[in-house]
Amino acid sequence: MTTTIPTPSAVVLVSGGMDSAVTLALARERGYACHALSVDYGQRHGAELDAAARTAAALGALVHKTVAVDLRSIGGSALTADIAVPEAGGPGIPVTYVPARNTIMLAIALGWAEVLGAHDVFCGVNAVDYSGYPDCRPAFIAAFERLANLATRAGVEGSGIRVHAPLIALGKADIVREGLRLGVDFAATVSCYQADAQGRACGRCDACRLRAEGFRAAAVGDPTRYA
Amino acid sequence: MTTTIPTPSAVVLVSGGMDSAVTLALARERGYACHALSVDYGQRHGAELDAAARTAAALGALVHKTVAVDLRSIGGSALTADIAVPEAGGPGIPVTYVPARNTIMLAIALGWAEVLGAHDVFCGVNAVDYSGYPDCRPAFIAAFERLANLATRAGVEGSGIRVHAPLIALGKADIVREGLRLGVDFAATVSCYQADAQGRACGRCDACRLRAEGFRAAAVGDPTRYA
Repeated sequence: MTTTIPTPSAVVLVSGGMDSAVTLALARERGYACHALSVDYGQRHGAELDAAARTAAALGALVHKTVAVDLRSIGGSALTADIAVPEAGGPGIPVTYVPARNTIMLAIALGWAEVLGAHDVFCGVNAVDYSGYPDCRPAFIAAFERLANLATRAGVEGSGIRVHAPLIALGKADIVREGLRLGVDFAATVSCYQADAQGRACGRCDACRLRAEGFRAAAVGDPTRYA
Repeated sequence: MTTTIPTPSAVVLVSGGMDSAVTLALARERGYACHALSVDYGQRHGAELDAAARTAAALGALVHKTVAVDLRSIGGSALTADIAVPEAGGPGIPVTYVPARNTIMLAIALGWAEVLGAHDVFCGVNAVDYSGYPDCRPAFIAAFERLANLATRAGVEGSGIRVHAPLIALGKADIVREGLRLGVDFAATVSCYQADAQGRACGRCDACRLRAEGFRAAAVGDPTRYA
């Protein structure tokens, strides 16, 4: 007798950057059929969305979907309005913070999970080597999971929603090592806040700085394509 | 000496329906400078967005903004996919439920509030005479407020976010009475799930049924324009 073990489905947020690529690889390793989701929120360049599509395909996502939400119409960030991207970190929450971005992206992921009947949502947020955004902290993810279980059919009908942030407590060097172990092609990922149309990084913004430090700390070559 | 008392700003979600119109009128009565927000999520008809714009202007919102998010691309609801709108209520969560809709709309409202420096978000959800959607319940609103205070700059920097749902415990007749007291022109609002291009209601769907019962229970004439 053959018993088919059903593969659980998950929605995985993929931005095109390195963290979400490693998150997708981890979700695949854990046996999920992965529905990769990118959110086109009017970010400064389309190169990261192209990278998201390539990464999703390379890492074995079942499907990749991009949902548009026009956050440019509310503005308020260097990533969605005409505010310059700073080239050095500083104290406090930086101007590259996009108001409520992770809340919005997780909410859309939650909606898709409901449609699919999936009970698992993955995102690549990280609270160690990060830019100080409030919506990357463990307490935020826990509060979103609690909300998700009140907001949805799955919450009412009892099967539950889990929000996974497997990188949240890892340093950038550990993320690099996990990615290399899982076969992530980091050269195909784009982390830079102001990459050019070919996806080449500036090498100067906060995202580039954190990423380069990760490769250095992991003592591996940095495969990033710089402009 | 003249002291100017600053007017606090609020973001108010307006759908074009009666509940959010009354919510906006209440927020105005409480002294807020109201930034009305509609979310174009690919709903079946544009008449409710037209009604939202008219209502926002009539009730003294400072500005009205519509933000697009393409929920049609995830589907899963009679309001965003090719599923017929049912004309009789039934047990359980109906097919008109849009997965994670209120989570997504509140998240966008939260983002705009952050950009504005506003600490108050209003929405017209109601858990008495409603369609049984999970994301209309008091526990959902409380969980969203908690999330909002972890997700945002205001949460980190201490000034706090409040999520108001002033109609949540009111019956439809009470909402009608509040609206009449505040001068809401209900004829200009559209609640129907399948209104025609002129905003005329079908008179048969769950939203029409709840609305008509409200006017009947309040013992006032029903000003709804039916097709």
